[in-house]
Amino acid sequence: MREIFTARVEPSKASVQGGRHARDGSADESFAHLVDGFRRFRAEVYPEQQALFARLAKAQQPRAMFITCADSRIVPELITQSSPGDLFVTRNVGNVVPPYGQMNGGVSSAIEYAVMALDVQHIIVCGHSDCGAMKAVLDPAGLQRMPTVKAWLRHCEVARSLVEQNCSCTAGEALGVLTEENVVAQLDHLRTHPSVAARLAGGQLSIHGWVYCIETSEILAYDAGTGRFAPLDGDGPLPVATPAPRYLQA
Amino acid sequence: MREIFTARVEPSKASVQGGRHARDGSADESFAHLVDGFRRFRAEVYPEQQALFARLAKAQQPRAMFITCADSRIVPELITQSSPGDLFVTRNVGNVVPPYGQMNGGVSSAIEYAVMALDVQHIIVCGHSDCGAMKAVLDPAGLQRMPTVKAWLRHCEVARSLVEQNCSCTAGEALGVLTEENVVAQLDHLRTHPSVAARLAGGQLSIHGWVYCIETSEILAYDAGTGRFAPLDGDGPLPVATPAPRYLQA
Amino acid sequence: MREIFTARVEPSKASVQGGRHARDGSADESFAHLVDGFRRFRAEVYPEQQALFARLAKAQQPRAMFITCADSRIVPELITQSSPGDLFVTRNVGNVVPPYGQMNGGVSSAIEYAVMALDVQHIIVCGHSDCGAMKAVLDPAGLQRMPTVKAWLRHCEVARSLVEQNCSCTAGEALGVLTEENVVAQLDHLRTHPSVAARLAGGQLSIHGWVYCIETSEILAYDAGTGRFAPLDGDGPLPVATPAPRYLQA
Amino acid sequence: MREIFTARVEPSKASVQGGRHARDGSADESFAHLVDGFRRFRAEVYPEQQALFARLAKAQQPRAMFITCADSRIVPELITQSSPGDLFVTRNVGNVVPPYGQMNGGVSSAIEYAVMALDVQHIIVCGHSDCGAMKAVLDPAGLQRMPTVKAWLRHCEVARSLVEQNCSCTAGEALGVLTEENVVAQLDHLRTHPSVAARLAGGQLSIHGWVYCIETSEILAYDAGTGRFAPLDGDGPLPVATPAPRYLQA
Amino acid sequence: MREIFTARVEPSKASVQGGRHARDGSADESFAHLVDGFRRFRAEVYPEQQALFARLAKAQQPRAMFITCADSRIVPELITQSSPGDLFVTRNVGNVVPPYGQMNGGVSSAIEYAVMALDVQHIIVCGHSDCGAMKAVLDPAGLQRMPTVKAWLRHCEVARSLVEQNCSCTAGEALGVLTEENVVAQLDHLRTHPSVAARLAGGQLSIHGWVYCIETSEILAYDAGTGRFAPLDGDGPLPVATPAPRYLQA
Amino acid sequence: MREIFTARVEPSKASVQGGRHARDGSADESFAHLVDGFRRFRAEVYPEQQALFARLAKAQQPRAMFITCADSRIVPELITQSSPGDLFVTRNVGNVVPPYGQMNGGVSSAIEYAVMALDVQHIIVCGHSDCGAMKAVLDPAGLQRMPTVKAWLRHCEVARSLVEQNCSCTAGEALGVLTEENVVAQLDHLRTHPSVAARLAGGQLSIHGWVYCIETSEILAYDAGTGRFAPLDGDGPLPVATPAPRYLQA
Repeated sequence: MREIFTARVEPSKASVQGGRHARDGSADESFAHLVDGFRRFRAEVYPEQQALFARLAKAQQPRAMFITCADSRIVPELITQSSPGDLFVTRNVGNVVPPYGQMNGGVSSAIEYAVMALDVQHIIVCGHSDCGAMKAVLDPAGLQRMPTVKAWLRHCEVARSLVEQNCSCTAGEALGVLTEENVVAQLDHLRTHPSVAARLAGGQLSIHGWVYCIETSEILAYDAGTGRFAPLDGDGPLPVATPAPRYLQA
Repeated sequence: MREIFTARVEPSKASVQGGRHARDGSADESFAHLVDGFRRFRAEVYPEQQALFARLAKAQQPRAMFITCADSRIVPELITQSSPGDLFVTRNVGNVVPPYGQMNGGVSSAIEYAVMALDVQHIIVCGHSDCGAMKAVLDPAGLQRMPTVKAWLRHCEVARSLVEQNCSCTAGEALGVLTEENVVAQLDHLRTHPSVAARLAGGQLSIHGWVYCIETSEILAYDAGTGRFAPLDGDGPLPVATPAPRYLQA
Repeated sequence: MREIFTARVEPSKASVQGGRHARDGSADESFAHLVDGFRRFRAEVYPEQQALFARLAKAQQPRAMFITCADSRIVPELITQSSPGDLFVTRNVGNVVPPYGQMNGGVSSAIEYAVMALDVQHIIVCGHSDCGAMKAVLDPAGLQRMPTVKAWLRHCEVARSLVEQNCSCTAGEALGVLTEENVVAQLDHLRTHPSVAARLAGGQLSIHGWVYCIETSEILAYDAGTGRFAPLDGDGPLPVATPAPRYLQA
Repeated sequence: MREIFTARVEPSKASVQGGRHARDGSADESFAHLVDGFRRFRAEVYPEQQALFARLAKAQQPRAMFITCADSRIVPELITQSSPGDLFVTRNVGNVVPPYGQMNGGVSSAIEYAVMALDVQHIIVCGHSDCGAMKAVLDPAGLQRMPTVKAWLRHCEVARSLVEQNCSCTAGEALGVLTEENVVAQLDHLRTHPSVAARLAGGQLSIHGWVYCIETSEILAYDAGTGRFAPLDGDGPLPVATPAPRYLQA
Repeated sequence: MREIFTARVEPSKASVQGGRHARDGSADESFAHLVDGFRRFRAEVYPEQQALFARLAKAQQPRAMFITCADSRIVPELITQSSPGDLFVTRNVGNVVPPYGQMNGGVSSAIEYAVMALDVQHIIVCGHSDCGAMKAVLDPAGLQRMPTVKAWLRHCEVARSLVEQNCSCTAGEALGVLTEENVVAQLDHLRTHPSVAARLAGGQLSIHGWVYCIETSEILAYDAGTGRFAPLDGDGPLPVATPAPRYLQA
Repeated sequence: MREIFTARVEPSKASVQGGRHARDGSADESFAHLVDGFRRFRAEVYPEQQALFARLAKAQQPRAMFITCADSRIVPELITQSSPGDLFVTRNVGNVVPPYGQMNGGVSSAIEYAVMALDVQHIIVCGHSDCGAMKAVLDPAGLQRMPTVKAWLRHCEVARSLVEQNCSCTAGEALGVLTEENVVAQLDHLRTHPSVAARLAGGQLSIHGWVYCIETSEILAYDAGTGRFAPLDGDGPLPVATPAPRYLQA
């Protein structure tokens, strides 16, 4: 049984090979790039915004909650030109909002905290083009090795069923339709959360469904009245996903 | 039973009051601010980086996975001066990484996807100063109205127990110690994920534990060798949280 | 340790006291009443409907799915004057429809079966006056001894929050408002089920939200357009809870 | 991406086509039939039983809890000739009673409520002939599209295993045996509920296992003493499923 | 923030204090005692039983499955004078057998493995006197700091309810009655497991419920016929907990 | 439907065939062997250790917690030559320690109880040679009929992934490597439990990872410093799996 262990690294040797463990150049470079970025932030960016950071040191009052995909190509603060303190952000594979149930996790906690503790007045659910999660929903074969992702994407099953049964679109079009329907479905899930439903009913909270296109920088926003997505920066009135409030506030 | 409904908004009236539902100025201003930011992004920022966005349109190859708090004051791309495409980001209340179990959710899915589908070589768990989640762990009375958050923060119970039983620090110091120990605990949780453990053993993945100070812009990084946090941009060698790989790769 | 067992029944003695175990008269009478009813059904009712039962022996094609409370005062077939074969019925405490999640139970299974296997075209969620579950939601003190019911009623938390935060009604009115809002909330939950959402989008399924008044026999039905409940048998058009279908069927 | 949306309904057009959305005649007829039934109930049935409904307006005291399948062909009040107020009813696919565990749902809540809040003295678990759920247990291939139903029917796995390993019956006979064994298994599950076990031990509660035959109107009842089912309306003593009480009540 | 870290051990110093970390004598002695015991086993016991161990090296065929408490005072092999290879053992706080459900864990897995893979023909559930778990069920105040244990002991809730509602015994007697009723309840849970139920029905498996008294070495065994516990080594026939098999094997 | 019941045993006949149900000789012999062993224990062993048992009657103070496989060939007290009262033992298929999460079961409860209520100072996780669970992890085809075991062994997935991706060993060697890595993984899981982490940090608890060889009686123990297993009874210092404590106790 002994000899198979020769495959294992002697920790001391590993150290000798450069740092705690030998890595190919690119991995080390990736991390060095981040650390260099941080040094640049401290030296160049932070001093200019020191007043902002001092003000933020003890409290946050975000303008909105932003729920989007973990995808590296989406930078919420960049595409809304927001500053630190503006967006309360939760991100996961597929910009999923599980419905409120008996087992609640990270997204549900973030929603409850945003509404109850921070009093956010807007929640944006933002999908995006070329989304790996949406591709996996359409073609789940690749999820064989990823059982956790597969289970998670059951929260997109509602959108998948809807598209499969209703959309006569081509394979090429399906990804776009699914991405939109997934945003609509997650907005529906959002409304099952007590904190959200209570404030929607009283008109103290707005919800928004966006799809961001990486290549063109376009954002399409869901309009519940027409049941369609329209450009966020179009000429007409803003698309509105928020249901009409059913109670008047004094 | 009828008359109580007079408290409800007539949807038609609400529309009259301006848009779909009447809101006080500040809520509308908050959202207008975001839309204006988006217009600015499209008009001014996007054109300059069009080549980058075109290249990113069909694929992502992030340098690292970044797990941090949903807090609006943390902007991962800002503090690492990263570009779109650099950081695969998942965020939740308390920068929690639930251990791999029989019920896995959003964070676990993001980890599996980052490692298995995107081959990230670095995972950073980043806590921060003045964290509302850490304050709630220390003083859970305020969580009475937030049962979902309370349940979620059981994943920080390991850090809370550790601090309570071992730290003779003052109340003022406890928040800082807990914030650090929470990062250490979430790194331990991270190692229970099969995809992570397998690549750590082979030296193909590094993990990092950071605490970012909003006020001073300092980042402290965990060093497993000394069991302490040290400045990420200090003079000595980089703090290393990654355990020694136990298998040599051919 | 021995002597405490004297409190236990000698099974043989119990038998002697009349049947398998001695019961006070009323319990035995209750059951005898049911068995007598069954004998009457066989002798008098069944022979008249034998053709119907013969036709139903091998298949069902219900007109609608009926989701209502387990309350003994609600008899769905009575209040809709339906025959065997007409209504696919699921009943539980509080006419709850849990949202579709990762842990699905009896109600979710019944919905999936009704839509996918039986192709029902209508789903009715029916609450009622004087509902013990709704009273318990308003005054949970009585649930101390009933932890299972308490956990189940978390699915009504969304309605409770909504009423608590928005309704300026008196204690007496609150029960009625909550009962209605609970029906609305369960309709929202219903829409998170993939089978339901897909057919709603294509206009192949309608959903209905009713509140039945035991004392007056009135049924109020939810109208999504006005956000209000109106008499099911009123003079105007039928109240419609079904969202507009977003896809045209060829 | 735009043109694929042409497949979607213009809500305004849909309205024009008759009501909120155009449906083929039969779906509308189904619903009209229910509404007509309700009008008939109000006009003809309710007035005759107004005294009963007035008495029931503020309380229920059901004679028994009735747990049966959601199947439209089973009408508990019809086959026992019961009135409103007599039967506390919970129904689901396969007349399942999940055992009491750490995750409890609708059936468990209904049981706890019936016993603790309503003091029911009888619980009947009633299966039936030609049961779709039992057929699916025997031939699960059809459940491929119904993952929720499939998961739910794991609660019938105990009966399936038992029949598979012990019954040398033909395929034709298997459905009947499984239907009976499923009732026996659900009775065993029922006994794991604390409220049930406590009252069974003291002789304050009786449990009954029935199988109703749609075609012949026969009910077979389980007798624990012989381990067999016998006609509920036979000449001999009533079949008894209730275990002997192990404690004497003072 | 820095100075609070002075409370932490310098790992290098800790090493100096003797081994990897300084411990008081008794902890080190406890472990040395185990290692010494192991040396004695290798030197003295193993050589005498080498033939047995050689035979066991490649397979096990246990005579029974033994489910008992984790309590250190219970040594199943000692009290049954069994050899290695005789007893397949699973142990937990309170000798609990969770019912078979949708979430199954370690005990359920062990049962399935014992019956399906090892074909055990007997399963013994063994409680014991002075059981800390049973004391905690009677007086849960001490569980405040142990939320996991508290949740686990919900599987004993059925026994607790039964005793509370039926037993007029003194506080001193309650522990003994509860310990017995808990064994009965776990036997009922055992029967909900498909593998167990199937073999019980066919008479291929027997189940046994024991309570072992640490002080007197007595074992009381449950007899389902009388509903009582009787000495395992008494003069009469063996107490039998196994239900009568309902199917004959060819 | 009637005649199929002829396959069932008449309980009265079964009794006649010898005891409550007819079994082949070997099953009865197996049980008689256990009862005979118990008689021998009472007659011969207990009298000699009566003082010990009297002392243990009212309390336990175990030297260590022992977590091992349910395998019948492992007798913890035998291989450590321990007495009743020495080892707090929990056993399951594969000596699994699920990580601390939101759903905790038997193993987690036993750990919490051992640390919080009994103040154990050592926890040993002990795997073994020829482990059926480890074989099933390597070759899961055999688990088809055992869905519960299959789900449980997901807690070993982390070890399986690690071995699969890193070990270039032969099929013959894989079982040994997996057995060791599984112990390492379960030690990592152990550290996610709050009670364990808190005491490890303060140096009040030690953890140990062993692999016991049935055939040779050898125990290999994990040493975290070298990342390897070494003989527990070797000449050098004891292998140490406990991480360095990070807090000094006053």
